[in-house]
Amino acid sequence: MSVNVFFAAPADLWPEYANHLPEALREAGVAADIRLEATDPATVDYIVYAPASPVQDLTPFTRAKLVQNLWAGVERIVGNPTLTMPLARMVDPGLTEGMVEYVTGHVLRYHLGIDAHLSRQDGVWRNSVLPPLARERSVAVLGLGALGAAAAETLAGLNFRVLGWSRRQKHIAGVECHSGEDGLQQVLSRAEIVVLLLPSTPDTANTLNAARLALLPTGARIINPGRGPLIDDNALLGALDSGHIAHATLDVFRTEPLPADHPYWAHPKVTVTPHIAADTRAVTASRVVAENIRRGIAGEPFLHLVDRRTGY
Amino acid sequence: MSVNVFFAAPADLWPEYANHLPEALREAGVAADIRLEATDPATVDYIVYAPASPVQDLTPFTRAKLVQNLWAGVERIVGNPTLTMPLARMVDPGLTEGMVEYVTGHVLRYHLGIDAHLSRQDGVWRNSVLPPLARERSVAVLGLGALGAAAAETLAGLNFRVLGWSRRQKHIAGVECHSGEDGLQQVLSRAEIVVLLLPSTPDTANTLNAARLALLPTGARIINPGRGPLIDDNALLGALDSGHIAHATLDVFRTEPLPADHPYWAHPKVTVTPHIAADTRAVTASRVVAENIRRGIAGEPFLHLVDRRTGY
Repeated sequence: MSVNVFFAAPADLWPEYANHLPEALREAGVAADIRLEATDPATVDYIVYAPASPVQDLTPFTRAKLVQNLWAGVERIVGNPTLTMPLARMVDPGLTEGMVEYVTGHVLRYHLGIDAHLSRQDGVWRNSVLPPLARERSVAVLGLGALGAAAAETLAGLNFRVLGWSRRQKHIAGVECHSGEDGLQQVLSRAEIVVLLLPSTPDTANTLNAARLALLPTGARIINPGRGPLIDDNALLGALDSGHIAHATLDVFRTEPLPADHPYWAHPKVTVTPHIAADTRAVTASRVVAENIRRGIAGEPFLHLVDRRTGY
Repeated sequence: MSVNVFFAAPADLWPEYANHLPEALREAGVAADIRLEATDPATVDYIVYAPASPVQDLTPFTRAKLVQNLWAGVERIVGNPTLTMPLARMVDPGLTEGMVEYVTGHVLRYHLGIDAHLSRQDGVWRNSVLPPLARERSVAVLGLGALGAAAAETLAGLNFRVLGWSRRQKHIAGVECHSGEDGLQQVLSRAEIVVLLLPSTPDTANTLNAARLALLPTGARIINPGRGPLIDDNALLGALDSGHIAHATLDVFRTEPLPADHPYWAHPKVTVTPHIAADTRAVTASRVVAENIRRGIAGEPFLHLVDRRTGY
């Protein structure tokens, strides 16, 4: 028996998936008819979704058993009132690996002071001050979901003192985990480098506001590969200008692409990267989609379901 | 019974060790008289040494049971004809950790293309090309001693395809190990990033000469935190200028400090760092010194002895 899969992501994504998705479904033993148009929505069994999808009204998809998002972030679909079927986020091993590599690379960049070496190729041999070892460097990871937990574990494996924070208390080997508002204050007050990997929800908006930035030690550095709204942009610019925060590396923004006249681009203490920390990779993401469809057919529980109340 | 320890390193090193060395000896249960002057060389039991030591003639130290070097590199002492007692290199856990952090940070910097992000803060959102994942990136580590093996293991743990090379065949989990001239050619022909961690011996001089550089794939990057003589400097400058090698990060040089007028400083494809990849840290190195002296007193074998024939 064949199932009907509607690829409801923007059309420009399809070329990436045109080979990988059919192949992954075949490998999962799923007979599927993949549709690119919603001509007969009442016959669709599974919806493959992406935030910028032209499909915003899910009401006609009366038979759909699952909306499978292609991104980890679900903030642009989870609040859709027509979403009455289960929603799964993407937990793509390629996406997790890319995120861990980005986070580890930029943490080490700050840890080793690489920017200063790149900018000081001036013939002066300055070898008197060594950076501390990672075991002497505190790094906070805010958000301990799939991505945050993987980043925290990798940093701990490199000997960093990792402070983790999440809304609900987590337990990760080698990571000092905290939760709650008190926990957040404790973590921020000790963090030399802060990595933001929280989901974007009403609760997490402006997690780094002026008051929380003030808790950080002077000279702290911030890496945001998570979500743009986690930072109060004006508060961050103020903390950079006052010298309280030494530097920020930002990969995500409230508006993307980041407008060319946004102050972040020209700020000497900000590195902008263009939302590249982690992207869904069609080859690995297709396997996740296929596995969830196989589970739906077999009556097994779906992987990576989103809790509609918390928004992640 | 107390032993006589002669701190024969340059005088400007003593302030770093003035507290740590006596404390480490005390913790090891060693009663020692530490001397800063060789006024009575025939009564010295243990010599703590550093390459720039004013002491070059070891003949008068007739009773010395060990020369303990404070650095990993021993090329400036191992050939000394007056060295008739055992020689131990420093294997400082702090030094190894510092080296692994430097190597990992610069490998990730090349892997992620961080330099391009730093130099292109121009308001243009370029997110169409993602870097490959580490699992798609080949990194060669030449030299699999304590430092090279630790670096190779860490890179493998970050999913890089690690190709290791050493004179004698080694076996390291997760690392594809090669040896011999054929092995070196194989490794170089596949390496997108090359890390040099070989010892400096007559055999390893100019390991990266023009012929070996030509084996590397176009666009390869080189990281040398090992020893200056491992690279034929003119051959490297030629390969950078021709575009065959994309970039080099060099921490060690034939002459240090690197002269201000050396072409490496001004070269747009070279990052010079001032021999900071790994430095002996007095606190951890003192414990290694104390442990070897304790072993000497107890009649146990010394740690980290240097083979005089191979020079490492």
